[in-house]
Amino acid sequence: MPLPKSIATVCLSGALPDKLEAAAVAGFQGVEIFENDLLTYDGSPEEVGRLCRDLGLAVTIYQPFRDFEAMPEPQRRRNLDRAERKFDTMQALGTDLILVCSNTQPATLPEPERAAADLREMAGRAARRGLRVGYEALAWGRQTSLWRQAWEIVRLADHPALGLILDSFHTLARGDDLAGLEQVPADRLFFLQLADAPRLSMDVLSWSRHFRLFPGQGELPVADFLRDVLRAGYRGPVSLEIFNDEFRAAPVRRIARDALRSLILLDDAVRAGAPPETVPAAPLPAAPQLDGLEFVEFAVDEPAREQLAGLLGTIGFRRAGLHRSKAVELQRQGGVNLVLNSEPDSAASERFEMFGPTVCAMALRVDDPERALARAQALLSPAWQERVGQGEQRIPAIRAPDGTLIYLLRRGTDIWADDFHLHPAPAPAVPPLTGIDHVVQALAPGHLDGFVLFYRAVFGLESEPVFELPDPFGIVRSRTLSSADRSLRLPLNVSESRQTGTGRFVSAYAGAGVHHIAFATDDAAALVAAAPDAPMLDIPENYYDDLAARLGLEDAQLGALQRGHLLYDQDGQGGSFVHAYTHAFQDRFFFEIVERRGGYDQYGAPNAAVRMAAQARQQRK
Amino acid sequence: MPLPKSIATVCLSGALPDKLEAAAVAGFQGVEIFENDLLTYDGSPEEVGRLCRDLGLAVTIYQPFRDFEAMPEPQRRRNLDRAERKFDTMQALGTDLILVCSNTQPATLPEPERAAADLREMAGRAARRGLRVGYEALAWGRQTSLWRQAWEIVRLADHPALGLILDSFHTLARGDDLAGLEQVPADRLFFLQLADAPRLSMDVLSWSRHFRLFPGQGELPVADFLRDVLRAGYRGPVSLEIFNDEFRAAPVRRIARDALRSLILLDDAVRAGAPPETVPAAPLPAAPQLDGLEFVEFAVDEPAREQLAGLLGTIGFRRAGLHRSKAVELQRQGGVNLVLNSEPDSAASERFEMFGPTVCAMALRVDDPERALARAQALLSPAWQERVGQGEQRIPAIRAPDGTLIYLLRRGTDIWADDFHLHPAPAPAVPPLTGIDHVVQALAPGHLDGFVLFYRAVFGLESEPVFELPDPFGIVRSRTLSSADRSLRLPLNVSESRQTGTGRFVSAYAGAGVHHIAFATDDAAALVAAAPDAPMLDIPENYYDDLAARLGLEDAQLGALQRGHLLYDQDGQGGSFVHAYTHAFQDRFFFEIVERRGGYDQYGAPNAAVRMAAQARQQRK
Repeated sequence: MPLPKSIATVCLSGALPDKLEAAAVAGFQGVEIFENDLLTYDGSPEEVGRLCRDLGLAVTIYQPFRDFEAMPEPQRRRNLDRAERKFDTMQALGTDLILVCSNTQPATLPEPERAAADLREMAGRAARRGLRVGYEALAWGRQTSLWRQAWEIVRLADHPALGLILDSFHTLARGDDLAGLEQVPADRLFFLQLADAPRLSMDVLSWSRHFRLFPGQGELPVADFLRDVLRAGYRGPVSLEIFNDEFRAAPVRRIARDALRSLILLDDAVRAGAPPETVPAAPLPAAPQLDGLEFVEFAVDEPAREQLAGLLGTIGFRRAGLHRSKAVELQRQGGVNLVLNSEPDSAASERFEMFGPTVCAMALRVDDPERALARAQALLSPAWQERVGQGEQRIPAIRAPDGTLIYLLRRGTDIWADDFHLHPAPAPAVPPLTGIDHVVQALAPGHLDGFVLFYRAVFGLESEPVFELPDPFGIVRSRTLSSADRSLRLPLNVSESRQTGTGRFVSAYAGAGVHHIAFATDDAAALVAAAPDAPMLDIPENYYDDLAARLGLEDAQLGALQRGHLLYDQDGQGGSFVHAYTHAFQDRFFFEIVERRGGYDQYGAPNAAVRMAAQARQQRK
Repeated sequence: MPLPKSIATVCLSGALPDKLEAAAVAGFQGVEIFENDLLTYDGSPEEVGRLCRDLGLAVTIYQPFRDFEAMPEPQRRRNLDRAERKFDTMQALGTDLILVCSNTQPATLPEPERAAADLREMAGRAARRGLRVGYEALAWGRQTSLWRQAWEIVRLADHPALGLILDSFHTLARGDDLAGLEQVPADRLFFLQLADAPRLSMDVLSWSRHFRLFPGQGELPVADFLRDVLRAGYRGPVSLEIFNDEFRAAPVRRIARDALRSLILLDDAVRAGAPPETVPAAPLPAAPQLDGLEFVEFAVDEPAREQLAGLLGTIGFRRAGLHRSKAVELQRQGGVNLVLNSEPDSAASERFEMFGPTVCAMALRVDDPERALARAQALLSPAWQERVGQGEQRIPAIRAPDGTLIYLLRRGTDIWADDFHLHPAPAPAVPPLTGIDHVVQALAPGHLDGFVLFYRAVFGLESEPVFELPDPFGIVRSRTLSSADRSLRLPLNVSESRQTGTGRFVSAYAGAGVHHIAFATDDAAALVAAAPDAPMLDIPENYYDDLAARLGLEDAQLGALQRGHLLYDQDGQGGSFVHAYTHAFQDRFFFEIVERRGGYDQYGAPNAAVRMAAQARQQRK
């Protein structure tokens, strides 16, 4: 049995009842009531407690109680009176635990004995009401800022109603760990709060208050932290306490689901090494072995289908099949399959009506579609049932956070013959594409962390380093999720500005969507040379002058690049990258031709500004 | 004669010609051509140079040339080849100066002599073409990160075509200063870049790349820096180099005007102490002595006028006059005048048609309206001429960045008798208001820095510390600009989220606007008690329970607060604050009643969450 899962109300947006309801709907068993959420609410603590019980939520803790210990008189006496008032509130809420975070006031005395005496007094008063007090070291506490200092005070106080509270952020953000925790008796560990975060170099208070993330979204070793706590004998709730400006502004149901997903994933991550009684009986189904994309599907109508087929034709795509029963065609070039879906009254037509021509589905080749689907479902991504015609295959599918369908195909099976009338495509006049190299999605700022968690959790993808791309109208941040073997690469681009290419795209789509698709080839120059009608993006001569100065390329190589509208990058380790872009299709998406040489493993980020400026010019025309 | 004013193209958004045109229109004399802006542009360097000349802009420098000095072979040789290519570009652009920033590569040799030898070689090659090389220490340079280290290398190199470049950010962000600069010969100071920034504790590279500000918008002592450079004999251009994500996403003309305004203000700030030949012959007209707000004017139509008058009537406002020729009425309560303008075909009616009921003007009492107007004009805020009827006063006015009119009234003069039929108002049934305490404006994120500069520059307002206000749907940041005597207080609220109260307001107004007006009183409890019909915002009981626990208020005091829907704050220095809010008027703006006691100088920020949650509940009803 895993430990109960809890979430602090401060993680979620909206009024207190919205937060509680979202936590319950997601599947949490408990909530931390954050004081500010209670005191801004116009229902009594009794009503809040009743609402929690009605929703099946335990109130795991009431928090925070600030600036209590080791104060000089008369504040000491006043703080104890304040505690009695808060005990009233706790009893009305129906929780027995309060969180005291270490004092930040300049007036706190630097005397652990005084802190211990005050906490013992508070714990004694709490015990008389059947309540308990947990003490937590804030990373920026005045005298107490490490968990070992907090434990020393709890140990000195020596009262059964007083225990230690651990928070992964406060420990890991300081570069500290839990070494020595095994010496703390398990019954002194009262509560556990978890939070992840990106590694940022800023003051720890601002970092904590604005940039915390759910476990698995950031870079802190939260799983190791949890495993250490479980090994030390902790058996209480595992509770998320995340302060994040974007989460506070996002729809509450979505964030609550992300929160629970992060804990389900964490349960699995700590399985090896954690006491068996603290983790679910069955492991999560393993993440799929990925083998690239079998196809990408576009939602179009008839005119858009024709135009898109026309654009694809210029780079060697040919119609290779027609669906047996639907207005769906297969376009193929070498190893790349694109499906153009103009079937009325379908999921694709719904997407088309909302957004115009857009990618509506991607099909991943996996080792075991059923296992992949079971994992997705266990991670709160339900199966999606697309309507199918008689005799057609039913392909397991889920939906990405933006609604894009993700089909799960068993690698090595032929999905085309059953549903399509195939006609042997004539050999293309241009060199063949070898596959889909990467698919770039544009996201609104509040969506990145949810996407990262979804792809990490459901497909086991890894996060590559973040790149910053200077658009003429603002900054675009790019974070790529990819499989270890790089058979699947999904860069996610985010822009704060609605004027950048990414931002305009996101505005048009009211959220997220595929922005461009990069096709792999062994010889980009030959491909572009053999595709004279392809509308390739113009690259300014200044770019090539700079390239010559920067990298000392030979004139022949430079000339070949320039003739092909090709961009070029080197990774400094012998790898290089040659790539070119088509014009955008109806200002919605575009295609890229990429050639990787010598193990180049990036995306040509230094050229992004050139591409985006050229696209901005193209749009003006 | 002040030094020529220049701006780096990287400060501004859009394509290169947009940037150049905006710089010229604002009134700059020169531009730094940032390499990335050139190489993403599809015109040749010659064309860019010609465009600059046509616009009357000197190309003050070409930059940056990176990772040049002290590299091992063969990079050393290759870097010199690269320099020759860039010299070609410079000659095509028509500039004689290139910026070499200190090397950040791990491979750089830690040998100043090698760096000096390489720069001497580069300078020699430059000199043969009549060009010059400037060397700048990046704060995160590998071997050279302080200006004194850069100067040591320039001194060692000892070539007339090699000089030092100073950048205020790189020096001030490191906590360094210019002590010792007087020992550098003036003819070795080749170029000066200025940037301000907020004080942030983050790594200096990220801070520099994303959060720089124009001088006067941030917290670095840029004026002192400039004065030191001028005293050291520098006589070249003063050039802004600002990397700021928001500026890059903002309309280019607005940012270019802010940029020049910052330099005009800086000219004046360094006047005392700078060599006379480096500053304008005439000082800026002094900032006005402020004496509060004579009135605030609302744009309404007839129905909105009646409803607004009705709301105001509940807190004791009475109609005190009617305009002689326009559909404009004066509402008065004690020392507060509000003008309700429903005149068709006026500036007010234009605002009303665009935004609905809204504040369209504020009238400041100043010591000398003509001087205040002259100062505003010198700082690029042109005078605004409102149409006036025969015999009416013409009041000098300018426009705030959001278009709100700001009238400049001579303090002590009666502006009402001439234009209005006044009728003696009956004594209100409620205690009198003593004045307008503050006017809160809601801004979209990209607008804050421009507003700060406008109010600091034109009116000499000071910036108070930033507060973060937790709204149920996101974070609101509040920065107050006020006069030293606090007769004018203008909090500016900014939200990233469009779901917060501030964010929704900003979305509705497509930019910025007055969000609420706080009226001062000597006894808020008495006022609210005497105004039983006033629709005051409900405050939850939990708030008062917490207040009792937190501050140990007596029951009588607590009861009085609770009966009056009053919020309470203490400043820890004997000051306290009692305040209450009305319901919002048509969801556009609301009013606050405030009572300051014992020198309280803040705005009740700890209560903002309670207010915003209550408003969110109110809106749902």
